[in-house]
Amino acid sequence: MGGDSTETHPPTPQQEAVVTPWTVSGVIDYDKLIKQFGSTPISEQLLQKFQALTGERPHVFLRRGIFFSHRDLNELLTRYEQGDKFFLYTGRGPSSTALHLGHLVPFIFTAYLQRVFNVPCVIQLTDDEKFLFAKQPKGSEAPKPLEHFQQLARENAKDIIAVGFDPEKTFLFTDTDYIGYLYSNVLKIQRATTYNQAKGIFGFTDSDNIGKHGFPAVQAAPSFSTSFPIVLKGEPNMRCLIPCAIDQDPYFRMTRDVAPRLTYSKPSLIHSKFFPALQGENSKMSSSIAESAIFLDDTPKKIKTKINKYAFSGGRQTIEEHRRLGANVDVDVSYRYLTFFLEDDERLEQIRQQYASGQMLSGEIKKELIQILQPLVEEHQRKRQLVTDEVLDKFFEIRPLKF
Amino acid sequence: MGGDSTETHPPTPQQEAVVTPWTVSGVIDYDKLIKQFGSTPISEQLLQKFQALTGERPHVFLRRGIFFSHRDLNELLTRYEQGDKFFLYTGRGPSSTALHLGHLVPFIFTAYLQRVFNVPCVIQLTDDEKFLFAKQPKGSEAPKPLEHFQQLARENAKDIIAVGFDPEKTFLFTDTDYIGYLYSNVLKIQRATTYNQAKGIFGFTDSDNIGKHGFPAVQAAPSFSTSFPIVLKGEPNMRCLIPCAIDQDPYFRMTRDVAPRLTYSKPSLIHSKFFPALQGENSKMSSSIAESAIFLDDTPKKIKTKINKYAFSGGRQTIEEHRRLGANVDVDVSYRYLTFFLEDDERLEQIRQQYASGQMLSGEIKKELIQILQPLVEEHQRKRQLVTDEVLDKFFEIRPLKF
Repeated sequence: MGGDSTETHPPTPQQEAVVTPWTVSGVIDYDKLIKQFGSTPISEQLLQKFQALTGERPHVFLRRGIFFSHRDLNELLTRYEQGDKFFLYTGRGPSSTALHLGHLVPFIFTAYLQRVFNVPCVIQLTDDEKFLFAKQPKGSEAPKPLEHFQQLARENAKDIIAVGFDPEKTFLFTDTDYIGYLYSNVLKIQRATTYNQAKGIFGFTDSDNIGKHGFPAVQAAPSFSTSFPIVLKGEPNMRCLIPCAIDQDPYFRMTRDVAPRLTYSKPSLIHSKFFPALQGENSKMSSSIAESAIFLDDTPKKIKTKINKYAFSGGRQTIEEHRRLGANVDVDVSYRYLTFFLEDDERLEQIRQQYASGQMLSGEIKKELIQILQPLVEEHQRKRQLVTDEVLDKFFEIRPLKF
Repeated sequence: MGGDSTETHPPTPQQEAVVTPWTVSGVIDYDKLIKQFGSTPISEQLLQKFQALTGERPHVFLRRGIFFSHRDLNELLTRYEQGDKFFLYTGRGPSSTALHLGHLVPFIFTAYLQRVFNVPCVIQLTDDEKFLFAKQPKGSEAPKPLEHFQQLARENAKDIIAVGFDPEKTFLFTDTDYIGYLYSNVLKIQRATTYNQAKGIFGFTDSDNIGKHGFPAVQAAPSFSTSFPIVLKGEPNMRCLIPCAIDQDPYFRMTRDVAPRLTYSKPSLIHSKFFPALQGENSKMSSSIAESAIFLDDTPKKIKTKINKYAFSGGRQTIEEHRRLGANVDVDVSYRYLTFFLEDDERLEQIRQQYASGQMLSGEIKKELIQILQPLVEEHQRKRQLVTDEVLDKFFEIRPLKF
């Protein structure tokens, strides 16, 4: 899993959108992306099916279109209705100790899916990917050793576990630890994929290292339940649902292409939009730019300062103008962040109306957001504290999950 | 390890020699190959060093030039003299249950090195390679599954063990079983190798599957002692000596190129010529052509028939002509086979003289060979019978070797 591009740029209207696992830039038109990738928008009907099956309102990420696209989700839910269990698979490329709010989005959503469907979940930490794809540092600095990424994986795992995964039903693994179990499926996927195909999907070049060429199979392998002979108790063809940001889709398009040739079920997918940088919608945040995001170890004071200082505002230049024209809610980062983290639909709508009409000022919506994010991040830090090495080892232990 | 090409052709004088891990064809000029590969011929001086260090005459494979080329062997022996242990690394790509005599050559030699230097030995069975590189079968036949090659690896291991490796000092592994231990070094080697480099060394193309591109790192990894944290007791940089047929050299040229960037010692190499097919010198045998070789499960009767019927003769068309001109010993397969398996130097020289002078007939030299190979193969079969599953498991067990 990439998902932490260092090539994120602030959008300019002229810029053509680029969405690959390693680069997200430009103004992203998500409807266009659905057409380009050949996935399916999440319909009102599908949301109703969610509600019927789970007995509760769909997650805010669903009803607000943050998870907006899918592949074969309808079919997976129909099978589930008929009694077929599935397993969840998501992951992360450990590239930095400092996770930001956006990194939590797929995990919050996956933990929700685990809870409402009562299913097992496997989480891959692609330390190998980050080692192979790391840019050569400039000047005389040595490239980061493999051990660096293995250590980051353990640090990131603490943040993931803190989101609230069920310890009885969740297995975390790093590729370098778990490759022995993945390798058979990795080989089968690799044999079924030519370099020409991989070039077409991932844009590899001949001057890339040879590890990059083979890596997509390592991210594909956990889509198949046979990669988890112990963890999923030898289920030979359990269906898989993969929640991920839309930029990871190329991996799973490839996976779905090869699945029938391996006599496996194609994994289903559910795609999220990107969590915007403080500087503006339609771009991803970067762990290497402190001002671009709210980080999970930021203090309440820092959160306040960052939002007040950097959160791109849709408000007007002067109070008079703002009162007269109202805010441009569509580009306002504070409002956008509230759509992720303010659960109360009515309050959110109230804020939208008041802000769009000019009744609410930019400073006021920022204050609302600060009041939500400060306790949210503090609560996360508290929960992360509870993730001791012992807890971590429990999640990493290769053991049969409960399901 | 490839070493079992199905693209072996009988040589024609016009044919340009091709020597890669997957194809050996044409008339091979070994002196030219040494220049082309940039290795070093084994000198008389080096043989004397062997004798001094081991206290016995060098193996027939050495004194008859069957192992004829090396890289840094002199340096390795000097270090050994100063007290530095090394480990032996060789291997095989399991492509067939029916091994032939030629397959034994590197193992006989490696077992000899293990005995005279009293060093540990690791033997890689590249089931992953054979799965990735297997040709697509013709027509509607399904490609062989991974399990097929895993099973072949166990069968081949019995033949290897029967050669006489020390159970206390020898570790056998299949890549699919052992990849977890290799993976860190595989990644480090992959990151240090671009596709352009791999293309240059191995002749990969863009329509190859992506597993092939990464595989050379899997064959390279066991050259470094850190791939054996348990087996070699955590030795961080123990020197390695690799006995192999010269066609495997490209893997280890690559390995030696990347070693310094990984702060590892370059492995030393000792190269053998090819064991000729019954049909003639200067070509490799093929497991898929029964008449091309003496197989290790051939009966005494079959051995006799094969040699009499197929062993290419340097004898003349008529007895009269033969008595007058003598045999062309250089192209005579029976004589060549005797150079591998007749240990008595004097008797061999006697045969050579008598045959070259026309005193000995083609049928007579074939009889000499049959009398040597029949008991040799029978003895191998007897020893192989003793390799029970229990013995096999012992060699495959991940455990500290004695050294």
